[in-house]
Amino acid sequence: MVGFALLGAGRIGNMHASIIAAHPQAELLYIYDTHQISATKAAKTHGSFAADSVEQILNDDRVQAVLIATSTDTHVDLLTRFVKAGKAVLCEKPIDLDFKKVEACWDTIKNSAVPVQIGFNRRYDPSHRSLQEAVSTGEFGKLEQLIITSRDPGLPPIEYLKGSGGLFRDMAIHDFDLARFILGEEPIEIQVLGSVLVDKQVAEMGDIDSAMIIMKTATGKLIHINCSRRCAYGYDQRVEAFCEKGMLLSDNPHPNGLTKYSSDGTGSKGQLHEFFIERYQDAYRNQLGAFVEGLLAGTPVHPSFKDGLAAQALVEAAQEALETGLPVKLK
Amino acid sequence: MVGFALLGAGRIGNMHASIIAAHPQAELLYIYDTHQISATKAAKTHGSFAADSVEQILNDDRVQAVLIATSTDTHVDLLTRFVKAGKAVLCEKPIDLDFKKVEACWDTIKNSAVPVQIGFNRRYDPSHRSLQEAVSTGEFGKLEQLIITSRDPGLPPIEYLKGSGGLFRDMAIHDFDLARFILGEEPIEIQVLGSVLVDKQVAEMGDIDSAMIIMKTATGKLIHINCSRRCAYGYDQRVEAFCEKGMLLSDNPHPNGLTKYSSDGTGSKGQLHEFFIERYQDAYRNQLGAFVEGLLAGTPVHPSFKDGLAAQALVEAAQEALETGLPVKLK
Amino acid sequence: MVGFALLGAGRIGNMHASIIAAHPQAELLYIYDTHQISATKAAKTHGSFAADSVEQILNDDRVQAVLIATSTDTHVDLLTRFVKAGKAVLCEKPIDLDFKKVEACWDTIKNSAVPVQIGFNRRYDPSHRSLQEAVSTGEFGKLEQLIITSRDPGLPPIEYLKGSGGLFRDMAIHDFDLARFILGEEPIEIQVLGSVLVDKQVAEMGDIDSAMIIMKTATGKLIHINCSRRCAYGYDQRVEAFCEKGMLLSDNPHPNGLTKYSSDGTGSKGQLHEFFIERYQDAYRNQLGAFVEGLLAGTPVHPSFKDGLAAQALVEAAQEALETGLPVKLK
Amino acid sequence: MVGFALLGAGRIGNMHASIIAAHPQAELLYIYDTHQISATKAAKTHGSFAADSVEQILNDDRVQAVLIATSTDTHVDLLTRFVKAGKAVLCEKPIDLDFKKVEACWDTIKNSAVPVQIGFNRRYDPSHRSLQEAVSTGEFGKLEQLIITSRDPGLPPIEYLKGSGGLFRDMAIHDFDLARFILGEEPIEIQVLGSVLVDKQVAEMGDIDSAMIIMKTATGKLIHINCSRRCAYGYDQRVEAFCEKGMLLSDNPHPNGLTKYSSDGTGSKGQLHEFFIERYQDAYRNQLGAFVEGLLAGTPVHPSFKDGLAAQALVEAAQEALETGLPVKLK
Repeated sequence: MVGFALLGAGRIGNMHASIIAAHPQAELLYIYDTHQISATKAAKTHGSFAADSVEQILNDDRVQAVLIATSTDTHVDLLTRFVKAGKAVLCEKPIDLDFKKVEACWDTIKNSAVPVQIGFNRRYDPSHRSLQEAVSTGEFGKLEQLIITSRDPGLPPIEYLKGSGGLFRDMAIHDFDLARFILGEEPIEIQVLGSVLVDKQVAEMGDIDSAMIIMKTATGKLIHINCSRRCAYGYDQRVEAFCEKGMLLSDNPHPNGLTKYSSDGTGSKGQLHEFFIERYQDAYRNQLGAFVEGLLAGTPVHPSFKDGLAAQALVEAAQEALETGLPVKLK
Repeated sequence: MVGFALLGAGRIGNMHASIIAAHPQAELLYIYDTHQISATKAAKTHGSFAADSVEQILNDDRVQAVLIATSTDTHVDLLTRFVKAGKAVLCEKPIDLDFKKVEACWDTIKNSAVPVQIGFNRRYDPSHRSLQEAVSTGEFGKLEQLIITSRDPGLPPIEYLKGSGGLFRDMAIHDFDLARFILGEEPIEIQVLGSVLVDKQVAEMGDIDSAMIIMKTATGKLIHINCSRRCAYGYDQRVEAFCEKGMLLSDNPHPNGLTKYSSDGTGSKGQLHEFFIERYQDAYRNQLGAFVEGLLAGTPVHPSFKDGLAAQALVEAAQEALETGLPVKLK
Repeated sequence: MVGFALLGAGRIGNMHASIIAAHPQAELLYIYDTHQISATKAAKTHGSFAADSVEQILNDDRVQAVLIATSTDTHVDLLTRFVKAGKAVLCEKPIDLDFKKVEACWDTIKNSAVPVQIGFNRRYDPSHRSLQEAVSTGEFGKLEQLIITSRDPGLPPIEYLKGSGGLFRDMAIHDFDLARFILGEEPIEIQVLGSVLVDKQVAEMGDIDSAMIIMKTATGKLIHINCSRRCAYGYDQRVEAFCEKGMLLSDNPHPNGLTKYSSDGTGSKGQLHEFFIERYQDAYRNQLGAFVEGLLAGTPVHPSFKDGLAAQALVEAAQEALETGLPVKLK
Repeated sequence: MVGFALLGAGRIGNMHASIIAAHPQAELLYIYDTHQISATKAAKTHGSFAADSVEQILNDDRVQAVLIATSTDTHVDLLTRFVKAGKAVLCEKPIDLDFKKVEACWDTIKNSAVPVQIGFNRRYDPSHRSLQEAVSTGEFGKLEQLIITSRDPGLPPIEYLKGSGGLFRDMAIHDFDLARFILGEEPIEIQVLGSVLVDKQVAEMGDIDSAMIIMKTATGKLIHINCSRRCAYGYDQRVEAFCEKGMLLSDNPHPNGLTKYSSDGTGSKGQLHEFFIERYQDAYRNQLGAFVEGLLAGTPVHPSFKDGLAAQALVEAAQEALETGLPVKLK
């Protein structure tokens, strides 16, 4: 058994709470939130205890691992403190919007043996993962082109967007991590084009809501990512790996198998999943499962802090390319 | 080259004319129709000659083959005369609505060496044929269950229906032939249920517009056919072969690859083909190709008159089962 | 909250236990099994208590509902006792293999107001249910033909089959219930053909492993069910509702969205679900949810005991048709 | 009727010959090829006459239109001569590999009223065209992102590649034209990444075999094109139009509807079409149909010479972006 504490009792925190609570080898000892009422309520729902303070968790020897699902600006501080306390960390992405803080954090913890896993849940989606496995085993020969389609169902509230760090830091970071995961190597060049097509308010705050990215690796592999903040037919998340001997497509699952044939059209299914909590339900569960399994087996957990760092480096490069209008080379 | 005459210059006759005209090893010497103006018009369109009489064709040594696409009640007479004249025959289905006449015709011609092919075009549809080939090579082991879905786009005119011989003789005969083709063996028992669900006028003339059939062969294979005279989303023609090691499905082709995703549904394609002339365009062309190839090579042509006879025997059994409400055993 | 006891701690019992335990408005007070060790183990896993006896549950006022997942031959006795004790019952199908016992049970309980729901879980599958709703609202006009494909992944152990009551009682009963659910009316005639195609041992015990059924309702609707005890590509469960203005298809879901394109084929997905526990996971959860909701709201629960009785009446008619080789009319 | 001459009796020339010959309102008066034997053979096959010289065609008043399917380096000269002679021209793409020659040609003919259509056949593919129509009618609101996938089945002979002008001029030009056709407006910026992943010999001649392109229009629409010279599963040609209220996908058609389900995978269809002649059969036919229709009606034909010029301008910009490694702005 692994003794867990959950930090953050918002919507995502509650999702994590129910996953930890349901895991046969995890025990959810504490839930903490600066908003005490949320912690208490979540603790009651999930059969756990509301911690009075972060210190209470830090000082409890039964706690072997923490899941950090608090607001982004608290991640680095909490992660550092728990790593120093010898407690394994599963931290929601991004580590921090300020890349320098992420680098500084890495300097602090890089010599620690405490396991740290970053919450790039999509790596644990059964379809995406099967694709990555098929690519890495070379089932269809070597990978040549990778195409990721990433469309959120609808624009978040403007207030949220203001603090989000922009489309690349907030949204595309998942796609950059997924690309690295599947490629098994690093992009060396990135080019981007961005637009405001969904809502003009996005332009006013200096952000974009639509983007197209192309990248290239040292071995010549080509990568395309397209993003939109709004998608009329649901949460559209596809990965296409074009290989020497074939193509692998991680297609959207359908929550309902009903298919209609009429004079209006044939083969029509319903909407895609509403958003990531529904779409990546299995991914979140498998992510925690892998974390617990790694802790119990004493093997490395993935994606690591370094993976988080590398994904954010791509994000920063994309941001620079957008701002300068020029290709950016990566080291 | 094979010298051809076409008998019948209606809608189907004209389709056959253009296929014969386009075949590099066929020459369309004559078109004949009792309605002289139709023959003349078709002859002009397809670069052929309107024959004055059947005799003119019978007596022309350049004519090696005839395609009979006249009204059903003339098939037996024409087929018999041309076979006697030593001219190969490709005859549209059914041979005759009166099974006794078909049997009598068979008695007359069965000792002749003249090639006779019956126009069960679906055997030459690329998808259905690939399915039959996969079944006969045993790609997925032995066939166990066969399911044929057969839905016409809309009820024919009541006047047509009156002379059609009923749903089994007019429509399901294709499905019975396709079943025999794929099975490679004969059904020994048939059970049916019929209904009038599309149009009450059909009941008034003693016919049905909807039917479900089940059959069994001596080796225990099970067959289901379902038919409807009306289908809101186009001409629906599917064949499903359930085998020991897998399933083969000959699915409906789509005339247009445009697929729509919106809040109304995802993955929606347009209508299926309008009807058999559009859906089975390739099948009709391949049917003639196989006929010509057989004639030139001196090999047997398929489906044969005996196949036509066997399909009609199933039709008669289905009709008897419908009328008596009891299972019918076949010899 | 609804206080629950679970009877039966086998594989399906354990599945139900985890569903009850996870339901926010259900409390799993007891697990009972004649095999005490199984009950103790399940109780530990699901945070419940192993009951010493059925009486302990009957006498505990906190228990408002029981879920019966014991062996079929104990269903009638347990169901009767709990209904008499005023405790709501959710009973796994079939009620009993002996139709007379089911009828007798009905006589005993029919005047009771205690809610009884039969475990025809497929009614609660999101796809099948969406299809039923679309049919009942008349989205595509009236239903005309219904086609159910039902293929289990592999033949159960011969020992199991010996006590199963045969393919219709054991397997097709789900399909009969689903047909009734979607039709919204009763079949009045049934015809069947059965075969042994999967394993000859099945013939030795007088059973079949492959079947095709056709039925008709008073309003002329036609129904086809095909069953096989073995399916090489997984658990194949499809429902096709052909209506006046279109077709509704409840298609198989795919556990993994990975799709392959290579020289071996294009658009190939992985296996279907392994079997019912995986395929109908949501259905089982929704089934319990509906039961709990009905109990808390004081509204009728579905499918009712009468639905169970009606499905078994169809099973008995199918069995008679198989044995006599003749159509069977239903009242 | 429109009197036609065909110039060029190679593989594509022969395809055009059969299309012209089959068109009810076109008469194929001449076939010309510098290789006289090819012209004679083609003339025999298609029931036409082998012209002795280009002059013979220029001087024959019965010839109202020519289809130019000769080698690329002869297009400009032939096109110019026939336009001057007042004969309508349908010219295969590209107009010339040298953009300056194309511009010069335009200067020469731009004031002529003689109809000139460029052979961007894909505009006439039923699926792509339906997509374009849906975009232009605004069925799903305004277009935001356009994604074109363009994969040839296999690398052409190295000798061919040497004279091809490179991947952009030879292959991607179709995709650029298709993008312009669907967008209804012009890209203003282009970025590209290219690689040699298929065959190292391609690198030796300074070309690429894999490419990713991103573009942006003045209204902010984003476009992605990906190309590969080799595709293991056939000729892969897809267009995805992401709009405000939905997505339109012009998906690959399947030449055969047979679909397989086994332990190796479910839903597997056969290969895509072999190459463009098979895939775009209807497109080539519709292209000629539209040309004939325009000539007979006296309405403008599309795509025009200016469309050809504009597509080549994008090609040149892409080539520059590849060579400089920098984004290229378009006027």
